[in-house]
Amino acid sequence: MTAPAFILVRPQLGMNIGMAARAMGNFALDQLRLVEPRDGWPNPEAGPPAAGADHVLEAVTVHDSVAAALADCHLTFATTVRPRDMPKPVVTPREAAAMMREAAAKGLKSGILFGPERSGLTADDLAPVATIVTCPVNPGHGSLNLAQAVLLLGYEWFQAAAPAPAPAPEHAPAPHGEVAGLIAHLDQALDAAGYYHVPDRTPATRRTLARLLTRPNFTQEEVRTLRGIIRALAEARKRRA
Amino acid sequence: MTAPAFILVRPQLGMNIGMAARAMGNFALDQLRLVEPRDGWPNPEAGPPAAGADHVLEAVTVHDSVAAALADCHLTFATTVRPRDMPKPVVTPREAAAMMREAAAKGLKSGILFGPERSGLTADDLAPVATIVTCPVNPGHGSLNLAQAVLLLGYEWFQAAAPAPAPAPEHAPAPHGEVAGLIAHLDQALDAAGYYHVPDRTPATRRTLARLLTRPNFTQEEVRTLRGIIRALAEARKRRA
Repeated sequence: MTAPAFILVRPQLGMNIGMAARAMGNFALDQLRLVEPRDGWPNPEAGPPAAGADHVLEAVTVHDSVAAALADCHLTFATTVRPRDMPKPVVTPREAAAMMREAAAKGLKSGILFGPERSGLTADDLAPVATIVTCPVNPGHGSLNLAQAVLLLGYEWFQAAAPAPAPAPEHAPAPHGEVAGLIAHLDQALDAAGYYHVPDRTPATRRTLARLLTRPNFTQEEVRTLRGIIRALAEARKRRA
Repeated sequence: MTAPAFILVRPQLGMNIGMAARAMGNFALDQLRLVEPRDGWPNPEAGPPAAGADHVLEAVTVHDSVAAALADCHLTFATTVRPRDMPKPVVTPREAAAMMREAAAKGLKSGILFGPERSGLTADDLAPVATIVTCPVNPGHGSLNLAQAVLLLGYEWFQAAAPAPAPAPEHAPAPHGEVAGLIAHLDQALDAAGYYHVPDRTPATRRTLARLLTRPNFTQEEVRTLRGIIRALAEARKRRA
């Protein structure tokens, strides 16, 4: 498995480098590269927001050009909001993740450029890159910030091969006989409480109750709890009677 | 289209409220609700990180309980890393987004709880919620922060294309407020009947009941029928007392 490199081009704030490292750690990525970081490297302001992703910060490499940072990458991507007037394919983060996974399975390495906080990537930065990644966002509400863009690319990379989500917890429905016992128990308690006061409607009411108690597919434990509730309400009544 | 409400439960830092607002604005969401924000509301620290999502901050509503914040929501979700030992379905952000889109197309509203920065949601917060949302992350590298979790849910909501409108569901779940009313009604009747006879266990028992009545996604009609049943059992008791 050849994991992608995330490349921050001329990043300004150490805080954002740290947040990028944290997001990468969350999604099992550890190759963070910096091209000409404004405040040099290492930058102590990156530590706290990295929140435990120290291994990502320690492995950071610094490069003096985009070309150097991309040198070992077979697939090259650049994140930008507005694709400039250039004939390159534009994909979503999800599509980029699928392309990177497919490449990784063949031992091919991907690199993704992320631009500086304010100005974004220049036409010169974009020129040598094969594919533009643009995240669909609310058209009225501009751009993602640097850490958000890193998070979404990392997230899509990880989800593209994520194991199936944890199976839903045991929801084995109770055997039908136990549900029938619950229905009979409630029926008896309601009868004693005078619930069926319109004889003509009793059969329809009983069907309604049977449906209501059947539809949720209660577990055995839930059936036991419900019978305890009926017992508590009915026996309190008897005690006071 | 009924957009979901994002509900920050006991958020600590104004900065995170602002970052959540920004992420929501990026993905065309504008219903941000706060439950008991630590530093009150409005909080001037939320402004700068919202970065132009002023309309989201201005529309914020503050609620004094999770139940109040969820009252008008038909589908209820809670984001948490480690689903506690409770029989609830667990879905990914992508699956949750698909469920919310499908519900929205039917006019049903969704609400998602996000826990406080350090501690996360409590068992009491989770008990009345139908579905847990857990984002698959690197197992060795813990959790997403609050703003990251909001970003990913907003992102998945925006990416999920709205499905074609479907006919009204046969089993539209009741708004959460009606389910909460049912839970409170049963609780009161059981208390009067002496059901909570072991005080130490009462909080756990109450959570069990809240889960039991939440999981089936009862319809409004079912909620009415269940309240009639409780009333019948409890009032017959009173009449004879």
